Amino acid sequence: MKSIFKRLSLIAIGALTTVSIASAESELEKVMKERGLTQQDILAAAKTYTPSGGRDKYIVFSSGGQSGQVMVYGVPSMRILKYIGVFTPEPWQGWGYDDDTKKILAEGKIRGKQITWGDTHHPGLSETNGKYDGKWLVINDKANPRIAVIDLSDFVTKQIVVNPVFKSDHGGAFFTPNSEYIIEACQYGAPLDNNYHPMEDFAETYRGGVTIWKFDHDKGRILPEKSFTLELPPYMQDLSDAGKEASYGWGFTNSFNSELYTGGIEKGLPPFEAGCSRNDTDFLHVYNWKKLAELAKDDKNVKIVNGHRVVPIDVAVKNGAIFLIPEPKSPHGVDVSPDGKYIVVCGKLDTHATVYSWEKIQDLIKKKDFAGKDPYGIPILDMKKAMHCQAELGLGPLHNQFGKKWKNGEIYTSLYVDSQVVRWDYLTCKVEDRQNVNYNIGHLCGMEGKSEDPQGEYIIALNKLAIDRFNNIGPLHPQNHQLIDVSGKKMQLLYDMPIPLGEPHQAVAIRVDKLHPHVRYKMGTSAFTGETHVGKTLAGQEKIVRDGDHVYVYGTVVRSHINPEHVTVNKGDTVTFYLTNLERARG
Amino acid sequence: MKSIFKRLSLIAIGALTTVSIASAESELEKVMKERGLTQQDILAAAKTYTPSGGRDKYIVFSSGGQSGQVMVYGVPSMRILKYIGVFTPEPWQGWGYDDDTKKILAEGKIRGKQITWGDTHHPGLSETNGKYDGKWLVINDKANPRIAVIDLSDFVTKQIVVNPVFKSDHGGAFFTPNSEYIIEACQYGAPLDNNYHPMEDFAETYRGGVTIWKFDHDKGRILPEKSFTLELPPYMQDLSDAGKEASYGWGFTNSFNSELYTGGIEKGLPPFEAGCSRNDTDFLHVYNWKKLAELAKDDKNVKIVNGHRVVPIDVAVKNGAIFLIPEPKSPHGVDVSPDGKYIVVCGKLDTHATVYSWEKIQDLIKKKDFAGKDPYGIPILDMKKAMHCQAELGLGPLHNQFGKKWKNGEIYTSLYVDSQVVRWDYLTCKVEDRQNVNYNIGHLCGMEGKSEDPQGEYIIALNKLAIDRFNNIGPLHPQNHQLIDVSGKKMQLLYDMPIPLGEPHQAVAIRVDKLHPHVRYKMGTSAFTGETHVGKTLAGQEKIVRDGDHVYVYGTVVRSHINPEHVTVNKGDTVTFYLTNLERARG
Repeated sequence: MKSIFKRLSLIAIGALTTVSIASAESELEKVMKERGLTQQDILAAAKTYTPSGGRDKYIVFSSGGQSGQVMVYGVPSMRILKYIGVFTPEPWQGWGYDDDTKKILAEGKIRGKQITWGDTHHPGLSETNGKYDGKWLVINDKANPRIAVIDLSDFVTKQIVVNPVFKSDHGGAFFTPNSEYIIEACQYGAPLDNNYHPMEDFAETYRGGVTIWKFDHDKGRILPEKSFTLELPPYMQDLSDAGKEASYGWGFTNSFNSELYTGGIEKGLPPFEAGCSRNDTDFLHVYNWKKLAELAKDDKNVKIVNGHRVVPIDVAVKNGAIFLIPEPKSPHGVDVSPDGKYIVVCGKLDTHATVYSWEKIQDLIKKKDFAGKDPYGIPILDMKKAMHCQAELGLGPLHNQFGKKWKNGEIYTSLYVDSQVVRWDYLTCKVEDRQNVNYNIGHLCGMEGKSEDPQGEYIIALNKLAIDRFNNIGPLHPQNHQLIDVSGKKMQLLYDMPIPLGEPHQAVAIRVDKLHPHVRYKMGTSAFTGETHVGKTLAGQEKIVRDGDHVYVYGTVVRSHINPEHVTVNKGDTVTFYLTNLERARG
Repeated sequence: MKSIFKRLSLIAIGALTTVSIASAESELEKVMKERGLTQQDILAAAKTYTPSGGRDKYIVFSSGGQSGQVMVYGVPSMRILKYIGVFTPEPWQGWGYDDDTKKILAEGKIRGKQITWGDTHHPGLSETNGKYDGKWLVINDKANPRIAVIDLSDFVTKQIVVNPVFKSDHGGAFFTPNSEYIIEACQYGAPLDNNYHPMEDFAETYRGGVTIWKFDHDKGRILPEKSFTLELPPYMQDLSDAGKEASYGWGFTNSFNSELYTGGIEKGLPPFEAGCSRNDTDFLHVYNWKKLAELAKDDKNVKIVNGHRVVPIDVAVKNGAIFLIPEPKSPHGVDVSPDGKYIVVCGKLDTHATVYSWEKIQDLIKKKDFAGKDPYGIPILDMKKAMHCQAELGLGPLHNQFGKKWKNGEIYTSLYVDSQVVRWDYLTCKVEDRQNVNYNIGHLCGMEGKSEDPQGEYIIALNKLAIDRFNNIGPLHPQNHQLIDVSGKKMQLLYDMPIPLGEPHQAVAIRVDKLHPHVRYKMGTSAFTGETHVGKTLAGQEKIVRDGDHVYVYGTVVRSHINPEHVTVNKGDTVTFYLTNLERARG
């Protein structure tokens, strides 16, 4: 292979002297010319191309949107490795097609109704000391408020829980720093009970809230009976983040409809989206989940709604466990710095990102220095007094991810309207660099960028509106994840990755060295529960058992060899096949 | 960007002189060192990397296996663009979740039973004069014998037909050269009727066959009432190919169980796979579909089975429309050369590919020079007399694709056991080059490599057994499609592409410039049928209509603005929402 590079020196000379050296065209130069590649492209190719058998440095878990799945891919190769079945049946991996997985999907029934789809939104990785530990992944279904737990020892969904009081949830699944709890915020205010209440009574009888799900980190299961919901005004809660280090024990959830507007375009009223954007500020909810968890254990402090413990607003207020802070116009992201000292909120319909100081917030709370109360009696802190600084970023700031030099203020924010990723300093509120992306960006995904240990290196820009960036495959365009190199002084766009299935909303990335999945199951293990399967059959144990008109076949398989080969039954029998894989060769 | 290449000259010098030039490390050299990339890797990267906004030269349609879908990706970027919903409901694109698509899925009911999965196997592209025309794609469901038609104007499935007489079909969907018909071969011999027949009567009452589906090329629909099946012995037909040019009007289908073995390992008999591989040869079926189509029009020549026209073996024999030729042991691929003069058959359990001469076959038929008859009365041609040459390729030859220089004999064959792609000459039967792949290969996909206009450039090697070539994501490995550059004298492996969903079996590739999908639908069009939707509603026409306890909402949407915003109904009502997208901006 010396020859390629030998000739490359000639290109370089050619490039310097602009002498035509057509006769000595290198193989690489020829390919570049044929394919219209620039030198910058070759550099980007070298940064992403992963040779046969090569491994990626990071694994990304992306929500699948209405596919109801989770998509798994590698960075920097941007090759998709798996779609994990979650809320939607998938025959290729048997998800929802056998008794074990039907049972897990049945956990997701809402008031008895099987729902064969979901809108997966915000994936969350389990944490130990605020760092990703590679054990569990959780994801919410925004459309039918549910949370699923995925086991990262085999990348299989192990549990689905239904939110007992919400009717939707956007701001998905956020772990507390030691995975004690998972925070799930309501989106559209709705009656917590399941009865009809007229829309006219919205402010009085509709409610929002934040469900604090107790999580058993060892077993990887949500414990519904030890979980509770903090009742909140129907401000339409959006995203959340758990406090870290300095702010450990607290949770932060923003909202976008402090107007309590409910629309009515068909009656000549302003459209919903306009009406709920009239105020200059909405409310950041600041609550003490640790204190609330203690309160919720006492029956005196809760009301039971649909069999679930709900801490009413007044109980939380009385116990100093909930406060509000104004935040600019219809915010989206609320992101706590790795040391927990700063909370960064982006005002979607504002041009700013606002950095709040946890020290100042604590101080105001301690001094009971409140600017007032909201109509539900929740103390409001003064925005300016709680603020560290405000950065003018551009149009439509949405979400944030922290960089490797977060101690020096390194942060990245997506700008929806300007279609940019901005690198700025959340300590000084100064903008440092901008990278254009080729579509309206929604979420962005850093490498462990929301943990206590951000890795830097890359930012992935997730599109909101799919546009025509790939070969035409009809009116339904692929979504797009653009990979950006953030390791240098200037950001560099490296790769466009089409999404062939689903409409991802948000993604989280983890270092590969933190993941230790099984390489195989023990013989006779259910590939879904991880436990010994009822149909386990070893070589020589093959049998056919009749129980009334139900016939059970206990069979074995080695590659394409099935035993038994013949099964004779009567018309009308129900037949269950259990086939144990006896293969010992490792793939 | 001059700087990168300026420094590249230094690498080259370094490479030649082995002088350490650390101080002048170029950006590219640095990336190569960090990521462990060789010069060969950089060349492969340059041949596959597609910059932001770039387009691919070929589009591949791959079956999805048990996902029941079709996967669409670009070559050489190997980026997946879409999963087309076919036999399996998919919520993200609404497939199977609205009335229109439920209707199409309901066409696939088998004896009244809805089947929510499939095992898509062999995709076929519609042809005009033997060349791909980019209009229609068909795919078979091997598990539940069905064929689906996908419209390449919007990449949406438009029709599903159920095979009325088969119980399985492996050798999927093969177009005749002007898309007059689609050939679907039976796999496992079974009773053509739907009644019980004991396995002991296999040879007498079980049958194979080839269904010749009439296709309306303009409308893109299979016409079941104008279709028929050629009854065949239960030899377990496998793959097919339609004759071209010289052999136009004929079809070729091989088989792998001329032993008529049916297994019985549980009774101490040899396992099925051993028992059906005892003979040194099986049978290539050679039939005149043009003549059979004429015969099938006459009621005298057919029996009606399950409402479907079946041409019995004896009618076909009497009319000189069916012949058999021995072919080496359990063959898989049967592939007709672009000029129709040669038929290449790979004996899976033999080391050879056998090239048959159409001229010799025709001659033998004309002269009625038969070597004998099979037990079902079908004339057998002598293998040696029909043969052009035989190439010893290696262990486990499976499938063939023709190269750009097919006139000079260029052909590529996959070797399952040797895990290789072999380039050889089907005119001289000489082997020219071998490329190792990193797993047991099944099908291979050339660029239009089975049409009358093979493009060369690339071969894609599809794996049979998924092995550990990517980051560990648990025991279920991704499948793998390796891209091989075949444009040079030596083949070169370019890229490993993991398959995140499904288990592809075979793929077909077409030049992008042959595809002309819509960029948008007319307002109010069903995205599935392509026709005006019953719920079409323009701005200002929004209304709510009650019909008994069924409420129909005729609404409109522009991005996230929905009209109406409020719908009040009674408990127990059924509510149907029709939402017409009024967006005019093109994505």
